[in-house]
Amino acid sequence: MAKHDKTQIGVSTILNPVPVVMVSCCGKDKSDSLSRPDIVTVAWTGTVNSEPPMLSISLRKSRHSHLLISDTREFVVNLVSKSLAKSCDFCGVKSGRDIDKFEATGLTAIPAEGMNFAVAIKESPVNISCRVRSVTELGSHDLFIADIVAVNADSYLLDDTGRLNLDKAMLVSYNHGEYFLPGKKIGFFGYSVASEDVIKRRLG
Amino acid sequence: MAKHDKTQIGVSTILNPVPVVMVSCCGKDKSDSLSRPDIVTVAWTGTVNSEPPMLSISLRKSRHSHLLISDTREFVVNLVSKSLAKSCDFCGVKSGRDIDKFEATGLTAIPAEGMNFAVAIKESPVNISCRVRSVTELGSHDLFIADIVAVNADSYLLDDTGRLNLDKAMLVSYNHGEYFLPGKKIGFFGYSVASEDVIKRRLG
Repeated sequence: MAKHDKTQIGVSTILNPVPVVMVSCCGKDKSDSLSRPDIVTVAWTGTVNSEPPMLSISLRKSRHSHLLISDTREFVVNLVSKSLAKSCDFCGVKSGRDIDKFEATGLTAIPAEGMNFAVAIKESPVNISCRVRSVTELGSHDLFIADIVAVNADSYLLDDTGRLNLDKAMLVSYNHGEYFLPGKKIGFFGYSVASEDVIKRRLG
Repeated sequence: MAKHDKTQIGVSTILNPVPVVMVSCCGKDKSDSLSRPDIVTVAWTGTVNSEPPMLSISLRKSRHSHLLISDTREFVVNLVSKSLAKSCDFCGVKSGRDIDKFEATGLTAIPAEGMNFAVAIKESPVNISCRVRSVTELGSHDLFIADIVAVNADSYLLDDTGRLNLDKAMLVSYNHGEYFLPGKKIGFFGYSVASEDVIKRRLG
């Protein structure tokens, strides 16, 4: 069998690896499960526009967070570091209708920059405040396209010049149902046409 | 400075890590640069729906591939393994208007399952054939939402039972401008609530 012999497999959501993030939100209602902050785990997310910066998340209509975000049109994307991986998985298998996810995970809800209702997760290295621009029904999921309105990062990720060093955050990715830490750095944008000097400096 | 002290940084496309894929397409026109197959590198991509399976890619209007995909409403997402990383980067810095990217990279264009025009990249471990459902102008980029209509994978990724083992493909992810190999596997969907036996069996 030659290395690149192909086999047709079932049609499925096979794009990999994808990000996996914890989306935090809070309802405006004052009843119990709607007023407490919630966290939902989302792998169906991506950057969709550069200028202005936008990202998307896809949520099933049945999710508790769908209700909260549809109501407030706000959410925070919290990037997931190694130490958050287990809580991230937990928030993907439980519903905020039944439990208080901040209490259950021991994570801390903090005010989110630029948001009126949505909270951020303190223990996440990067909190991305998002305001919903549009919602599109696609089938099992609704696609929320949102403007990024503020970004807060753990201060230890910034060097003396203010440059963000995301390597230090050990962000988790999701590949075919499994969580992975980042491995070896093998290149940077433009390395295929960069000089040997630049490659040596940046990749060692 | 406490570990999770936050600093507000600039609003930007900071969702990380993201996938990085090679999107192959081909125009229907018979003039030179429009009839030859093209490859564009895309990091602004994600799964957007489960049933039916859909993904999105975002492209700048100025990209040659934008023209080809808008015309045929077809493209193939080719996942990027370690050995394709340099070609992937190269296809992100050069334009198909100026060069034949298959010729320049030495990659092989093969017919793509279910497509009338778009080709697939033989050397990619997974070829995902996509048909455009909608195009939305967002600003710098247009968002192409597409149905996944066929998936072909390298046969060596399938075990005797037909189960796909994507670990073997060593898929590259993109984190803040840099390319990374997958690192340590730290969990699987549901591991936060799984029994010790299951965790031991699946994570060793």
